[in-house]
Amino acid sequence: MSSKKNITVIGAGLVGSLVSIYLAKRGYKVDVYERRPDMRKADVVAGRSINLALSDRGWRGLEGVGIAEEIKKIAIPMYGRAIHLKDGSSTYQAYGKDNQAIYSVSRGGINMRLMDLAEQQPNVTLHFEERCDKLDRKSNELSFFNTKTATKTDVKSDIVLGSDGAFSAVRTQMQFQSDRFDYQQFYIDAGYKELVIPAGPNGEYLIEKNCLHIWPRGSFMMIALPNMDGSFTCTLFFQMEGVLSFDSIKTKDDVMKFFTEEFPDAVPLMPTLLTDWFVNPTASLVTVKCKPWVWDDKIALIGDAAHAIVPFYGQGMNCGFEDCVVLDELINKYGDLNGACLKEYETLRKPDGDAIADLAIANFIEMRDKTADKTFLLQKKIEAHFSAKHPDLWIPLYSMVTYSPHIRYSEALASGNKQQDIMDKIMAITDIELLWDSAEVEKEILNLL
Amino acid sequence: MSSKKNITVIGAGLVGSLVSIYLAKRGYKVDVYERRPDMRKADVVAGRSINLALSDRGWRGLEGVGIAEEIKKIAIPMYGRAIHLKDGSSTYQAYGKDNQAIYSVSRGGINMRLMDLAEQQPNVTLHFEERCDKLDRKSNELSFFNTKTATKTDVKSDIVLGSDGAFSAVRTQMQFQSDRFDYQQFYIDAGYKELVIPAGPNGEYLIEKNCLHIWPRGSFMMIALPNMDGSFTCTLFFQMEGVLSFDSIKTKDDVMKFFTEEFPDAVPLMPTLLTDWFVNPTASLVTVKCKPWVWDDKIALIGDAAHAIVPFYGQGMNCGFEDCVVLDELINKYGDLNGACLKEYETLRKPDGDAIADLAIANFIEMRDKTADKTFLLQKKIEAHFSAKHPDLWIPLYSMVTYSPHIRYSEALASGNKQQDIMDKIMAITDIELLWDSAEVEKEILNLL
Repeated sequence: MSSKKNITVIGAGLVGSLVSIYLAKRGYKVDVYERRPDMRKADVVAGRSINLALSDRGWRGLEGVGIAEEIKKIAIPMYGRAIHLKDGSSTYQAYGKDNQAIYSVSRGGINMRLMDLAEQQPNVTLHFEERCDKLDRKSNELSFFNTKTATKTDVKSDIVLGSDGAFSAVRTQMQFQSDRFDYQQFYIDAGYKELVIPAGPNGEYLIEKNCLHIWPRGSFMMIALPNMDGSFTCTLFFQMEGVLSFDSIKTKDDVMKFFTEEFPDAVPLMPTLLTDWFVNPTASLVTVKCKPWVWDDKIALIGDAAHAIVPFYGQGMNCGFEDCVVLDELINKYGDLNGACLKEYETLRKPDGDAIADLAIANFIEMRDKTADKTFLLQKKIEAHFSAKHPDLWIPLYSMVTYSPHIRYSEALASGNKQQDIMDKIMAITDIELLWDSAEVEKEILNLL
Repeated sequence: MSSKKNITVIGAGLVGSLVSIYLAKRGYKVDVYERRPDMRKADVVAGRSINLALSDRGWRGLEGVGIAEEIKKIAIPMYGRAIHLKDGSSTYQAYGKDNQAIYSVSRGGINMRLMDLAEQQPNVTLHFEERCDKLDRKSNELSFFNTKTATKTDVKSDIVLGSDGAFSAVRTQMQFQSDRFDYQQFYIDAGYKELVIPAGPNGEYLIEKNCLHIWPRGSFMMIALPNMDGSFTCTLFFQMEGVLSFDSIKTKDDVMKFFTEEFPDAVPLMPTLLTDWFVNPTASLVTVKCKPWVWDDKIALIGDAAHAIVPFYGQGMNCGFEDCVVLDELINKYGDLNGACLKEYETLRKPDGDAIADLAIANFIEMRDKTADKTFLLQKKIEAHFSAKHPDLWIPLYSMVTYSPHIRYSEALASGNKQQDIMDKIMAITDIELLWDSAEVEKEILNLL
């Protein structure tokens, strides 16, 4: 293995930090350039917590560098969805069988831990407040501008990895230095705003701790994920414009009226609702697809820079961590992070990045629109029933994506489409609501498979 | 009308020059900044001629500023397609009825004439070799870098129009200064190379002058358009990569073998084939779609900057000229080039830009793949026959796009899809090749309409 290769990683976010550790363990010299200040030293905005749902693909990424157990200590398992209806009542849907869970974790918490671990590697150096202004494709030279000292640094390395997120500077540089670069960015109509349900007076959780809470309302929804301190981070996904939208809700009265009507059980638990609403930003939700991900055997994109997705399958971080695992396995296979390795990385991961992007958008529709729908719930019940009897023949789509890292996203999408075709036929059976657990229905599914 | 508004147009190409004339005639002060040197003064590469097919939408644009008659003098009508088969034989397909034609014109010739006309307006100034480096969205300030004098100029104006082509600097600036900008660029597998059939010894045309010549070969094709000097500009549209592609043809022998096999009738007419092949660049074919086209009531995209399309419907220039006509009509309607005017321009034209982009890609398939196909030719014959009998009920898609400026591209696309559904049913009739001009078939089409 050519252990002397210098690798420049752009972005010290979740994926940039993790891939640096993987590369360091393979013996490469790694320099990581991050545009922002070091989040471990910067003042954190009090009371703000962005949390993410870590699932099996992400755990695999952390296990590969030996920090899964440590992160598990600050992760809260969520075994299912708590569905909050408009009348204030709620129901529960398990995510999978037995103890299958996804885990609420603090984005900042994991990122800081990954940065620490990266810096503990003797061959990794993190550089902060370094904005990537230019990447010259021919020479592989990068220009950074230090936003604190206002100085410019030129860096030349063997390999450049762009892990700099949805609005990647590396990708943008390639967009204008490449012929035949396919690129797409598009926004869904909904944006989001973060709100909070604080802990109770004694630090207790005021709604069920081990659930992902959803208030599905058709064209919009609110969700809540638990934090370690007893609070929940709520996120309202809502139309950006239109008759009922972020745009239409202008006054304190508008906010209270909207929440009281739509989320009556949540309002009493959200004492800072009005402040949060007007202080916290309204953010947009972008999907990015592009091709290629690799140029000249030496420049590659990874994580959101290659495939930014909407958050509705909880797979953004998990997919990025899986990129790192796949790249690491390919370095093992080829003996070096060389052109063949990068080429196979792109060939393998591009269809999976596209698939999870499409799945994430489809899950938005499912979460906001169908989790309160009787036919949908019956279909899920039939699938779970059949899957329990024939676990080898039917893994529900959600389980494939979330708990089955050995199944590629692209395979999960294809299987899911096939399952939906079958279930469309099953749900059309007369009196299916009475026959759903009958031997006939089971036999018919077996026939259709 | 607020005749005092200053308008900055970026790009003095076909659309930038034409829109400047329209704006000047409405009384605006217009400054046009072009990145390239003045093509009227620069040395033109000898023997090279890029030609375009001007059709009714484009003529309308030229008529609006009074130069249609002048351009007609240097335009060569093409009344149909001459299809050259692999055995060296050829057939003819009329484009429309009677004297309907599209016109082969020199891109440079029209552009220079439009620049002259723009400069004749007292309120238009053209600036050359001015690269747009920055457009500040908040202040509407532009920074230009003069590539000849290496000086920087800052410009502030009321309205900025980006007519700077498929790789628009204006659009790129907006991409990074806008939230929720939907953007897509994608390449088809084919690229192109320009070749030439020179004039005969006495300046005569060596193949039929008044045709668009096509050598359709399934996965690739060559076309030829006539020039005023007796020559034809040939364009080979061909896979960029693969077993048989630009990539696979490496030596002089490869070129001769390929052309002799595929275009046997053309080879004797192409004495400079080998030189042209190795000297002329291989170029890519991009489609660009984006949204919005207008920001803050004062920055707008027009022409290829808003909707770059592949050339297979011959509509790139025609669509851009139609943008100018629509914008001019809206200035008339609103009394000024104001926010409401720009907003309606986007609302009207965005669906049409998308439609012609899709139609252009579909026509690539038709031209390379189907113009030599018997079923396709029969279908066209039936459509022409029916359309001749019922001209109010059936305008062929090609005619809608090419000869019917009163029909929007988006309407043409929708009608064309409906017609294709009907023709799918008609072509499935048993013995349709015998019954094609029967009363039964006519009645069936009438039923289906």
